[in-house]
Amino acid sequence: MVLYKRITLQTACFFYMLFFSAAILAQQPADFVNPFIGTSNFGATFPGPIAPRGMASISPFNVSGPQNRPLEKDSQWLSNPYVNENKFLTGFSQVNLSGVGCPELGVILLMPTTGTVETNHLKYGSTYSNEIAKTAYYSVNIDKYKVKAEFTASKRVGVSQFTFPKGQSNILLNLGVGLTNEEGAMVKIVSSTEIEGMRSVGSFCYNSPEDAYPVYFVAKFSKPADQFGVWKKPAQYNGAEAQWMGYNGKTRMMENTIKTVVGDSIGTYFTYQFDKEETVNVKIGISYVSIENARENLEKETANKSFDAVYKETYDEWNTELSKILVEGGSEDDKTIFYTALYHTLIHPNTLNDYNGEYPEIKKSKIGKTDGTRYTVFSLWDTYRNLHQLMSLAYPKQQSDMVKSMLEMYDENGWLPKWELNATETFTMVGDPASIVIADTYLKGIRDFDVQKAYKAMLKGADQMENNPLRPGLKDYIEKGYLTTNDRGPVSTTQEYNASDYSISLLAKALGKTADANRFKKRSLSYKKLFDKNLKLLRPRLADGKWYEPFDPILGANFEENVGFIEGNAWQYAFMVPHDIKGLIQLMGGNKGFSSQLQKVFDSKQFDMANEPDIAYPYLFNYLKGEEFKSQDLVKKLVREYFQNKPKGLPGNDDTGTMSAWLVYSMMGIYPISPGEPVYTITTPMFDKITIKLDANYYKKENIVIEREVNNDGTIKQIQLDGKAINSYFISHDNFVNGTSLKVIQN
Amino acid sequence: MVLYKRITLQTACFFYMLFFSAAILAQQPADFVNPFIGTSNFGATFPGPIAPRGMASISPFNVSGPQNRPLEKDSQWLSNPYVNENKFLTGFSQVNLSGVGCPELGVILLMPTTGTVETNHLKYGSTYSNEIAKTAYYSVNIDKYKVKAEFTASKRVGVSQFTFPKGQSNILLNLGVGLTNEEGAMVKIVSSTEIEGMRSVGSFCYNSPEDAYPVYFVAKFSKPADQFGVWKKPAQYNGAEAQWMGYNGKTRMMENTIKTVVGDSIGTYFTYQFDKEETVNVKIGISYVSIENARENLEKETANKSFDAVYKETYDEWNTELSKILVEGGSEDDKTIFYTALYHTLIHPNTLNDYNGEYPEIKKSKIGKTDGTRYTVFSLWDTYRNLHQLMSLAYPKQQSDMVKSMLEMYDENGWLPKWELNATETFTMVGDPASIVIADTYLKGIRDFDVQKAYKAMLKGADQMENNPLRPGLKDYIEKGYLTTNDRGPVSTTQEYNASDYSISLLAKALGKTADANRFKKRSLSYKKLFDKNLKLLRPRLADGKWYEPFDPILGANFEENVGFIEGNAWQYAFMVPHDIKGLIQLMGGNKGFSSQLQKVFDSKQFDMANEPDIAYPYLFNYLKGEEFKSQDLVKKLVREYFQNKPKGLPGNDDTGTMSAWLVYSMMGIYPISPGEPVYTITTPMFDKITIKLDANYYKKENIVIEREVNNDGTIKQIQLDGKAINSYFISHDNFVNGTSLKVIQN
Repeated sequence: MVLYKRITLQTACFFYMLFFSAAILAQQPADFVNPFIGTSNFGATFPGPIAPRGMASISPFNVSGPQNRPLEKDSQWLSNPYVNENKFLTGFSQVNLSGVGCPELGVILLMPTTGTVETNHLKYGSTYSNEIAKTAYYSVNIDKYKVKAEFTASKRVGVSQFTFPKGQSNILLNLGVGLTNEEGAMVKIVSSTEIEGMRSVGSFCYNSPEDAYPVYFVAKFSKPADQFGVWKKPAQYNGAEAQWMGYNGKTRMMENTIKTVVGDSIGTYFTYQFDKEETVNVKIGISYVSIENARENLEKETANKSFDAVYKETYDEWNTELSKILVEGGSEDDKTIFYTALYHTLIHPNTLNDYNGEYPEIKKSKIGKTDGTRYTVFSLWDTYRNLHQLMSLAYPKQQSDMVKSMLEMYDENGWLPKWELNATETFTMVGDPASIVIADTYLKGIRDFDVQKAYKAMLKGADQMENNPLRPGLKDYIEKGYLTTNDRGPVSTTQEYNASDYSISLLAKALGKTADANRFKKRSLSYKKLFDKNLKLLRPRLADGKWYEPFDPILGANFEENVGFIEGNAWQYAFMVPHDIKGLIQLMGGNKGFSSQLQKVFDSKQFDMANEPDIAYPYLFNYLKGEEFKSQDLVKKLVREYFQNKPKGLPGNDDTGTMSAWLVYSMMGIYPISPGEPVYTITTPMFDKITIKLDANYYKKENIVIEREVNNDGTIKQIQLDGKAINSYFISHDNFVNGTSLKVIQN
Repeated sequence: MVLYKRITLQTACFFYMLFFSAAILAQQPADFVNPFIGTSNFGATFPGPIAPRGMASISPFNVSGPQNRPLEKDSQWLSNPYVNENKFLTGFSQVNLSGVGCPELGVILLMPTTGTVETNHLKYGSTYSNEIAKTAYYSVNIDKYKVKAEFTASKRVGVSQFTFPKGQSNILLNLGVGLTNEEGAMVKIVSSTEIEGMRSVGSFCYNSPEDAYPVYFVAKFSKPADQFGVWKKPAQYNGAEAQWMGYNGKTRMMENTIKTVVGDSIGTYFTYQFDKEETVNVKIGISYVSIENARENLEKETANKSFDAVYKETYDEWNTELSKILVEGGSEDDKTIFYTALYHTLIHPNTLNDYNGEYPEIKKSKIGKTDGTRYTVFSLWDTYRNLHQLMSLAYPKQQSDMVKSMLEMYDENGWLPKWELNATETFTMVGDPASIVIADTYLKGIRDFDVQKAYKAMLKGADQMENNPLRPGLKDYIEKGYLTTNDRGPVSTTQEYNASDYSISLLAKALGKTADANRFKKRSLSYKKLFDKNLKLLRPRLADGKWYEPFDPILGANFEENVGFIEGNAWQYAFMVPHDIKGLIQLMGGNKGFSSQLQKVFDSKQFDMANEPDIAYPYLFNYLKGEEFKSQDLVKKLVREYFQNKPKGLPGNDDTGTMSAWLVYSMMGIYPISPGEPVYTITTPMFDKITIKLDANYYKKENIVIEREVNNDGTIKQIQLDGKAINSYFISHDNFVNGTSLKVIQN
């Protein structure tokens, strides 16, 4: 078993691999996960343990305190609890998001210390060493206290194990400091082995503070504390009576209290007097419904289980999931970046419901109950492009449950989700991506959901012109064909609506609704009205139809605010009409004009691997006969440049697995080029053989194998399905999954 | 039935009484309670409803907002939720203390409003009119909203009834603003008819912030809200990310949320759309143990009961209690001040345990359970002087349960209580008064408690020289006979320890522990070492035994801090050796010197009717043969001067009923002159006949009657017990309660 350590340890690791190559043969997919990938370069992943689609997770928290500047949480917009370069650790957060661009969760911080209890995290924080991160396991030595800390997790429970030296040892649970700017917590020590409470989080992306919500928890300790207590640092009181309050604004130590304590800056301490080295386990169950459910989650998932037993179960669960795609050939690093990417696609959307099936319904006023899985964290503007397509292929049951969750949200809230987060609708980003995801799923043959309801929900989002939270500016869009500069990101948003409308048209067609199919097909092409023939780019228009002036197509790179586009500029959005590339080719004056313009994106360094609008562009040369080699070269080059087996090994924010899904598909040599359309485009696989296990409940074949025949590692000479050349760089999902082998033969 | 209204309405009231004098004959004791007495002049009582020894109570809250200056809670040390002179009402607090000098409780503010929901109490507050306060009932019209608000309470549940006009009506539950400087609350709307939560209170007298504790509550509404929500005003965030937080520090409206919300400034709103005048009842159950218990309290005490039914039950309960002492003759006002005082003595100590018997044990770490009543709010420095003596006489079962509660505290905490407040030991004031209360109770024949345990507890407090929280400075006290200026209030504290030691000696004697009896008797006289023969006053000594210089015997009047005394000066403490007045007479050079010095206290206006050290002084002339008339005159004069049927009708803070107990005894013509000794001294009764019903479980006789025979309303000519002259102005408790009639015949 290979353990992935900090980048500084990788040389040692490399030699280990050289000398024990025999052992490598026995490695399982789960052994190839390096959770440090994406923990630098704003990848926003975390190295700590989580179960597949787990609610609970544990991350080392090293983004607080001046020692961690510049990547310190309060000095900038920082969305991750852990930064690989940082050095000062202040605890281990028990709920975390992976690959998200706004700070959220990263709270309920557990921290082992020794000696006198210190409650100020800036004082009790420590440097650390000997980090080990692997599937379902993370460990680290805390220098200041000579404490070894180990972590694993089940789906709804984080399990921590601290090995303390002789003397006074403390386990702090800090409910004040956290990644989010939200504050407010409640805690009650139930006994010398149990704590219950909640922490308020929310205001995602600094929006919707009124939707702040609680994370409930129950913590159970394997050994009873010799002493315990709660601390509270109250707000400064400013009235006339402050003169008598010697304690004004000072931290209070509430020893042995079993009373409920609330406050913005509170925590608990459990203290032990050890006369030899001792180990204490702490299990923390999480729920978004209630403390009772958190306790039940803890008990049902981990009661009476040792740390090792929980670790083994979660490891096995991961290995089963990751083994759905088996790769052969390729380097150790290739396998590592591949399986780590696959691992990252299996974190979000994650489980929201408790063990008993209860979950908070979206929009707050009810507790729902499910027999299956209620998913949450739908960053759909990102994930509609490839992640859900990957789920439909290799994890169709999960994808089906995600669609069902989305339809439940429609039932509860009247609208499909846009950027759903723990039962809040954050309405972050633009577009109406749920329609694309659902249509794509259905058209790939995953149909065990209520498609009529789904269709109705899509139409509501697509047609309701007033009070439509999903599609602002819809009236202009329907009447003019585009949003105007009166709305936010009018060009981008028009493109998003086009893409959604195209998916609706495809689904309408499949459902025999011809009129709708035609109507939405037509709507999906309205981007053309924003095509500026001179620039050969899309360009914003004013409400009176005139071009927005002055217009700088470069403005908007690097996420600057600009008038036409969301998180991008005219170049980065120029080709984002995946459903009508052929139309765009015509607009751009045919293959040559299109090719030249597309090439400019790359040559002028406008291509942004780190953001979604243009991530399919490398594949667009496949539409140009004779130029497909450019896609093959570009994809390979981008994979090598941006995806590496190191903390900086993601191009940027993982976007809840979207970047990782791009890598998984790209390394398999196929890509879902047009979201909503059940079609893949083909480039060179990066492994000799890739076996995708197909779920018998959704697919006829047991496996589909992608193979490559490497001759001179050149461009693709031929593509064969089950031995027959297909004479295309595109293959339908149906043909693909009903085949046995897709073989890519290189020159 | 006579209703007591604001002072401005009393003229009307007077005429009502004149014209309906026939009705007056049918008045019950409970009809003579005027809850406005003590709501001005810092009496710190409140006019709202409470059950006898109730946990819950409701008070109009009019001490917030600049309109209420100078008696505004944040601009000075103000300990009451209601001031009769104030005009601006911001709600109705659901837990309150009566007659306490430090701000505490006065939280969970319910407020009816109309129109758009406004959550800032300074904006939604209103003037008010037509206040009515009587036993178990308070009502008021809220001018701004034309809402009639009525209130009653059972022991653990406050019941509010609001009559709203047509239109939008709102019921706000504000957990932010309150009387205490403590902050922090948690709330969860369970449904459109129910709210649960807690509010943190504590830091009594600006001490022991670490003992802050929660008040849990459940509120049930008689009509489901059409809309509801929680508001939260978060603290200002100051990090770099504040630039993106447009909502920073602003109040959030969390509509229809059913999630737990915590914060320092939060509240709920329940909103109704009424198309005609409508009434809504709100029942709020309280617990110091848990939300579950608050809910059970509510259900067991008030479920399915109408407002009127709850009112009637509590009224009847009060009437039964107040009828334990029946007075005849005397004016309407005399009866009113008498029964209102008796009512005020039956508020604290109050019930701490929930309906199911559970209560928080003192010092925080356990939930206890009682089959009887666990009492709390023991302001013993005040109440040891007369209130418990009154309870032993007329309410011995309650007094017995109070002693049992004190012994439970000893079991839980290792020490008898000093100033116990909702299971916290505030250690406010000086001395070791619990011993006096327990000895007094036992020596009066109330013995159904574990006296051996009590004795052991007393000895611990009296003898443990190190780490003794009850008796700081005990080493000096035992070794030198007095505390020195190294300790706080050394003279006062020495006097308090003397008084306690005397009670211990009495109990030791009764228990046959002769050696202890002698030892403590001797200790009880050590005050003599502080007697300055020149001044004929007690005076502080330095650690080396020298007098403290310069010494101003006047310094300390009006509560200024001074070196020798606590809340008083040398004159106010000069005679506070109630157990050794004869010894003091000797010290002062016999009767003449003593009389002259005592008279000086009154002549020089050093006598303070409003504070405890000197409240027995008016009775001390009874020790001087031939001067007893002075006590008779003084007591009558003080009663008339300081105790009146009006809001200012208490001399100052009621001190949890101590001032009221003084009045009750004084109007009955007897007074427990030496706490611990089962003896009363006698002055002129202020009613023709007073019948004290005796509890058959503790006393042999059914009643004891005090009568006066008024001739020229002069001084006392003779005192008879059962027709026989007793030739003394003192009578033992035994003789008194085993008699049938004590008759005071005036000249």
